[in-house]
Amino acid sequence: MNKVKCDVTNPKLAIEGRKRIEWADNEMPVLETIRERFTRTKPLKSVRVSCCLHVTKETANLMLTLKSGGADVKLCASNPLSTQDSVAASLVVDFGIPVFARHGENHKTYYSHIDTCVKHHPQVAVDDGCDLNNAVHKILKNKSSISWEIYGGTEETTTGVVRLRNMERSKVLLYPVIAVNDAKTKHLFDNRYGTGQSTMDGIIRATNVLLSGKVLVVAGYGWCGRGVAMRASGMGARVVVTEVDPVRALEAVMDGYQVLPMTEAASLGDIFVTVTGDRDVLTTRHFRSMKNGAILSNAGHFDVEVDVKGLKKAAVRHRQISNVVDEYTLPNKKRIYLLAQGRLVNLSAAEGHPPSVMDMSFANQALSIEYLVKNTGKLKPCVYPVPEQIDTKVARLKLKAMGRTIDILTPAQRKYLNTWAEGT
Amino acid sequence: MNKVKCDVTNPKLAIEGRKRIEWADNEMPVLETIRERFTRTKPLKSVRVSCCLHVTKETANLMLTLKSGGADVKLCASNPLSTQDSVAASLVVDFGIPVFARHGENHKTYYSHIDTCVKHHPQVAVDDGCDLNNAVHKILKNKSSISWEIYGGTEETTTGVVRLRNMERSKVLLYPVIAVNDAKTKHLFDNRYGTGQSTMDGIIRATNVLLSGKVLVVAGYGWCGRGVAMRASGMGARVVVTEVDPVRALEAVMDGYQVLPMTEAASLGDIFVTVTGDRDVLTTRHFRSMKNGAILSNAGHFDVEVDVKGLKKAAVRHRQISNVVDEYTLPNKKRIYLLAQGRLVNLSAAEGHPPSVMDMSFANQALSIEYLVKNTGKLKPCVYPVPEQIDTKVARLKLKAMGRTIDILTPAQRKYLNTWAEGT
Amino acid sequence: MNKVKCDVTNPKLAIEGRKRIEWADNEMPVLETIRERFTRTKPLKSVRVSCCLHVTKETANLMLTLKSGGADVKLCASNPLSTQDSVAASLVVDFGIPVFARHGENHKTYYSHIDTCVKHHPQVAVDDGCDLNNAVHKILKNKSSISWEIYGGTEETTTGVVRLRNMERSKVLLYPVIAVNDAKTKHLFDNRYGTGQSTMDGIIRATNVLLSGKVLVVAGYGWCGRGVAMRASGMGARVVVTEVDPVRALEAVMDGYQVLPMTEAASLGDIFVTVTGDRDVLTTRHFRSMKNGAILSNAGHFDVEVDVKGLKKAAVRHRQISNVVDEYTLPNKKRIYLLAQGRLVNLSAAEGHPPSVMDMSFANQALSIEYLVKNTGKLKPCVYPVPEQIDTKVARLKLKAMGRTIDILTPAQRKYLNTWAEGT
Amino acid sequence: MNKVKCDVTNPKLAIEGRKRIEWADNEMPVLETIRERFTRTKPLKSVRVSCCLHVTKETANLMLTLKSGGADVKLCASNPLSTQDSVAASLVVDFGIPVFARHGENHKTYYSHIDTCVKHHPQVAVDDGCDLNNAVHKILKNKSSISWEIYGGTEETTTGVVRLRNMERSKVLLYPVIAVNDAKTKHLFDNRYGTGQSTMDGIIRATNVLLSGKVLVVAGYGWCGRGVAMRASGMGARVVVTEVDPVRALEAVMDGYQVLPMTEAASLGDIFVTVTGDRDVLTTRHFRSMKNGAILSNAGHFDVEVDVKGLKKAAVRHRQISNVVDEYTLPNKKRIYLLAQGRLVNLSAAEGHPPSVMDMSFANQALSIEYLVKNTGKLKPCVYPVPEQIDTKVARLKLKAMGRTIDILTPAQRKYLNTWAEGT
Repeated sequence: MNKVKCDVTNPKLAIEGRKRIEWADNEMPVLETIRERFTRTKPLKSVRVSCCLHVTKETANLMLTLKSGGADVKLCASNPLSTQDSVAASLVVDFGIPVFARHGENHKTYYSHIDTCVKHHPQVAVDDGCDLNNAVHKILKNKSSISWEIYGGTEETTTGVVRLRNMERSKVLLYPVIAVNDAKTKHLFDNRYGTGQSTMDGIIRATNVLLSGKVLVVAGYGWCGRGVAMRASGMGARVVVTEVDPVRALEAVMDGYQVLPMTEAASLGDIFVTVTGDRDVLTTRHFRSMKNGAILSNAGHFDVEVDVKGLKKAAVRHRQISNVVDEYTLPNKKRIYLLAQGRLVNLSAAEGHPPSVMDMSFANQALSIEYLVKNTGKLKPCVYPVPEQIDTKVARLKLKAMGRTIDILTPAQRKYLNTWAEGT
Repeated sequence: MNKVKCDVTNPKLAIEGRKRIEWADNEMPVLETIRERFTRTKPLKSVRVSCCLHVTKETANLMLTLKSGGADVKLCASNPLSTQDSVAASLVVDFGIPVFARHGENHKTYYSHIDTCVKHHPQVAVDDGCDLNNAVHKILKNKSSISWEIYGGTEETTTGVVRLRNMERSKVLLYPVIAVNDAKTKHLFDNRYGTGQSTMDGIIRATNVLLSGKVLVVAGYGWCGRGVAMRASGMGARVVVTEVDPVRALEAVMDGYQVLPMTEAASLGDIFVTVTGDRDVLTTRHFRSMKNGAILSNAGHFDVEVDVKGLKKAAVRHRQISNVVDEYTLPNKKRIYLLAQGRLVNLSAAEGHPPSVMDMSFANQALSIEYLVKNTGKLKPCVYPVPEQIDTKVARLKLKAMGRTIDILTPAQRKYLNTWAEGT
Repeated sequence: MNKVKCDVTNPKLAIEGRKRIEWADNEMPVLETIRERFTRTKPLKSVRVSCCLHVTKETANLMLTLKSGGADVKLCASNPLSTQDSVAASLVVDFGIPVFARHGENHKTYYSHIDTCVKHHPQVAVDDGCDLNNAVHKILKNKSSISWEIYGGTEETTTGVVRLRNMERSKVLLYPVIAVNDAKTKHLFDNRYGTGQSTMDGIIRATNVLLSGKVLVVAGYGWCGRGVAMRASGMGARVVVTEVDPVRALEAVMDGYQVLPMTEAASLGDIFVTVTGDRDVLTTRHFRSMKNGAILSNAGHFDVEVDVKGLKKAAVRHRQISNVVDEYTLPNKKRIYLLAQGRLVNLSAAEGHPPSVMDMSFANQALSIEYLVKNTGKLKPCVYPVPEQIDTKVARLKLKAMGRTIDILTPAQRKYLNTWAEGT
Repeated sequence: MNKVKCDVTNPKLAIEGRKRIEWADNEMPVLETIRERFTRTKPLKSVRVSCCLHVTKETANLMLTLKSGGADVKLCASNPLSTQDSVAASLVVDFGIPVFARHGENHKTYYSHIDTCVKHHPQVAVDDGCDLNNAVHKILKNKSSISWEIYGGTEETTTGVVRLRNMERSKVLLYPVIAVNDAKTKHLFDNRYGTGQSTMDGIIRATNVLLSGKVLVVAGYGWCGRGVAMRASGMGARVVVTEVDPVRALEAVMDGYQVLPMTEAASLGDIFVTVTGDRDVLTTRHFRSMKNGAILSNAGHFDVEVDVKGLKKAAVRHRQISNVVDEYTLPNKKRIYLLAQGRLVNLSAAEGHPPSVMDMSFANQALSIEYLVKNTGKLKPCVYPVPEQIDTKVARLKLKAMGRTIDILTPAQRKYLNTWAEGT
């Protein structure tokens, strides 16, 4: 322990943390398969990898996989409220992995921890929200000034990919980054089934409210948003969707949801979930028209979707109901409940995505990191998709782990798909 | 009437056909908006357009739109069983559009009708399944031999796009073709909601079977397949999915369906729907293990998915139950019911996609045809996507027609989406 | 044929009718099991049975079952628009059963047909809506005047049971009637899954409208209403429920539907389905606020739920779109479409309940008729439930026919359920 | 505090407990309305009421309501693992209510606490599972020996009602008991929506497993079972149902679930939920065929559904994963995870039913208790249903609290429902 540099809340929590890591491992068979190969072949030998991720039991299993592949890893948090202190402790104590993350750390500590990961001079920067890659770029300034060999980065979230593409477009991106988020086996599963379930979980743990019969407003109908809508509906809520993209809005209509502008939805909702990746989705003009007892939560990456400052300013009274529920009373006497201070409700009020879905996301991470190392020098400073063979491989391994067999094309079928002359 | 060249079953059916065309028009407000503009601006003036499409009341409204834009149109069927004779009659009699299509026409007549459309020397070839574009290519042979100016083609189906991409890859494609199928406002809606509902409709009209409690096997989990699965499940069936693509198979698992190889699914299913775009999905080895009374249907473009020849050969007895249900008795005494001879069940046993979904598909067609004409000379002999602005426009018009308003990004929100420096 | 008294539309339709009857028989294995026993044991030997039922292919199989049991049957229609003429023809021609029913018969003919069945002096009166039992009571006047031995009656619908209970309460009921509708294996299945599917079927066949994305208003949340809501929702519609019973209204809320008074729902609905068993559910004050193009349909027993007279009176123009769609234009220019003249849309625009669900309802009918005959003299002039052992038997036979096995209580489990002393 | 007799874990938890009680109160508007009236009219003045209920924040609000009505209450737990210690503390400290319940109390303490409530000589015994009414009967022995005036009892659960009916049938029931469980506004809501959500909540909190794509076996398709099936399905699980009742089994089939005997389901399930009200639902013969990693949980009232003793005996190794997860390794190396020791998973691993559903259940309790007091001397020693006017009143109050308006029958409609002469 004393040899491992770290900053964690309480090393004594390691005992509980280890159990949690092992429990998650049960549900992460794809990552386990990869870890076994990594242990044998050491594809990441001596590669410095800095990770800025939610410090959870699932992430722990990714760290162990990278380490088993030979990597020299460091881990900091991608969100001050999502760190599971016991997991952080176990990674340090039981596995000798340097972790810099404390649940509830303040803004300054949060960034100092990222800074520690930057100073590790990562050859691969594994990121969730683009704070780490952003920080690395700040010290690099320009390409010529890079003082160490960088193979590239990876990014876990839609939000982070949007930021990276903006960097690419602005020509400031200095090394290749793989958009792990965009892998089919990531965003179609993690963003939809993972966010869907864990957001319901976060809301229920925080409030114990009956979803059945409630009007639940989902802002944003991307993959995360449709996951939230699908599960809320599956729990008996009546779902209202708000959107800015007409195609998505139309899909939401066809999926049977009521689609409204937020100004109208605000007065109907019992529960709100923002998941747009954008700021100012719920602001003062919405708070004013809300019902007494309205519950606000965010499942988007950053805490900018609900205008928390605006809410505080508008309120005449504030009470903390629990560590994840704050009550704000408006001048019109109505009480509004904000969950997890507007931060990711699924990670702050529950345990984040279930391990079996993170299994796929992190399998993509592990294989993408290996790919960056293998292909060093061949890639440009662009945002790359996860190679299709990785995507397909992850799906195959997952199906196998679940004990499911699927059909295989016969030669005649394969040929038919590649012809164009045959017709009616 | 006698001035219009045509080959239709019975011109006297025009009275009924006209009512049907008008009824569909009620549900096609986007196409109506486009028609109004086309009438004023004549963007297709004197352009020869040959269309090989299902001759339905919805297609009729597309034909009227093209004609109102100034086009010199000809229409033949893209499937011998989907032609609505009354609609064909009305197009000829009431609107003077040359139609070459008879419900139930034989193979030879079918191709002679396509040939008539080829001989029209189309400047734009509008296709559904690639039979027309294929036929045009057969007489063109090579680029230098093209004897008339061709702006390009459009393609309505997944199957047709697959064939066209194979042509592009084989470098035999001679003019640009827009893959209308791939527009978001087409395949996300038509293939999913349209095929989903109309396939249920076709099965129920053909059999009047209660879907609730039945095991319904869907072969293929593409957009059409998931539409079928979603609606079958919504009608109370227990859905089993077969797939060859591991990512799609995994999605089906996560969507709560049982996923099996067809050899196992064959003995469980009460009803089968093939929707893979490939051949030999249900063959003799599957028929043998099926339950007594199993119902087979196809919702894929061509009638190659169920091995009908194999079924006929394997059967010891055949009885026609109705014009869309054939009974085959196997040596093991089990009776198997084939719907619509293995052709598109939604078009053969019901009326095909509802007009409100064809509204969007055909709005994409109309605007893509206009785009080809406007951009003549600028496009290569490739398969092109529908331009994004067309896609978005169709969605906006549809939402407007449905009376739905959606949110608009504020400048601050738009800016946020384009930055990368802001973080937690 | 010439020996059988009858009044049917066209005996030549018998060939088609027979095919339909046989097709339905495939899906009615429970009734088939009963028919085999009846054929052997003749429990209804020489019993005069008059039936007033929807003359459909499923009803035909009930008639054959009763006849095979030895009964002297006569059949008339319980609704002028639901008669399948080909089935009526086949019953007469192929099976020698006297049928008095013509599709579309007028009010006078309808009642004269019922009168014929009354004059048969039925010992068992099998009814669907209580028109036959009502007519029998009219000629009986009082108990002492009954000139023939009556074992009792049966009733198939909620509407009819309500009428019979009113008769019982008013002390005018003169013989026992079994409320077949109230059997669990009837109303939980037929009313819910049967009405649910067949109502969607009727609406789609009549209009070919896309349900996905539409607002569908269901008036009444009884078993039929929840079937309609469940299936409409399963087809992608957004369902709004209206109710007068607070418990049911609350269930609809908890099931995730929007619950509104009809005055508010009227302006939101794209499609309306009334299924309350009561009159005046949609009246002039509602028509006025409806959207242009609103579609009105009824799935309740009588055509009193939509105020058709009021609609005709309010309209400035009427057009018949098809034989099941009428267009009414209101003074505010809005067009409203009425399906099947406000009569049962599932029977008038489609084929009624699927045979596999009628299998259970009619198995209850056959066994209840047998029960009335066996227990003659033991029953009072009351409305009786279907005996529980019949209900359970029907369920067991159905499961067996579907090839499903279920668990059986062990002696220890059975004992546990009957004790009260054991605790935590 | 020192004046109130009690046995609770830690009075210092009162501060947290009070917050929880108030939070639940927000979601219990019907009970609040009743409490306001009780406070004014004191209908329970000086009535001794003993309650054996899950000691939760919702129950606390019932206790406050009874006390506000003038009752002299005492409270003990109906399950050793469901007690929320902080709530127990607050009831004692903040509200002076004598509570005898400690989370995790052993068998002996559990029954000694019930004994304390019996010695209170309750005039009304409010029960959840029939342990209290059973205990009262044990000291009464026979009717003549009752030494104090007893108005009656109430019972909250299906399990308890089954026991009471057995007592009634065995003629040992000595006073009237109202089956609160059977009120429509109780069992249709609490058992279905409450158990459905809270069981999912319990399983997720205990395991953080992704439900999507899992096979979840529900044993029992009563109201609780269908709630569990509905919500599991809504979360993306594939649901398999086991049943002993053929009608319910058939409903499960028609609802689209796979129905199997448990011997077959055992090898398919990833997660099991027993909710039958009977013993030995999962026993050694099932454990043996289960998959590695199978998760077992119970949502039925007593911990007899999973044969925990049998599991312990069969296991070669036991490890406690967390306070609600135990791992048992079988001789075949497979690990099985038992949640909450086979006790109610929704109460042991989560917070039980959400307050808004308990609002209705407890409103029925409060009004039924009032009814027993008002009707003293008029009721026999039988199991009574909740009077219909109470049921309807609860529904009306709930709809009002949710801000929903519903339709009201017109006089003509009411008349129509009461006639029988009108027909087609």
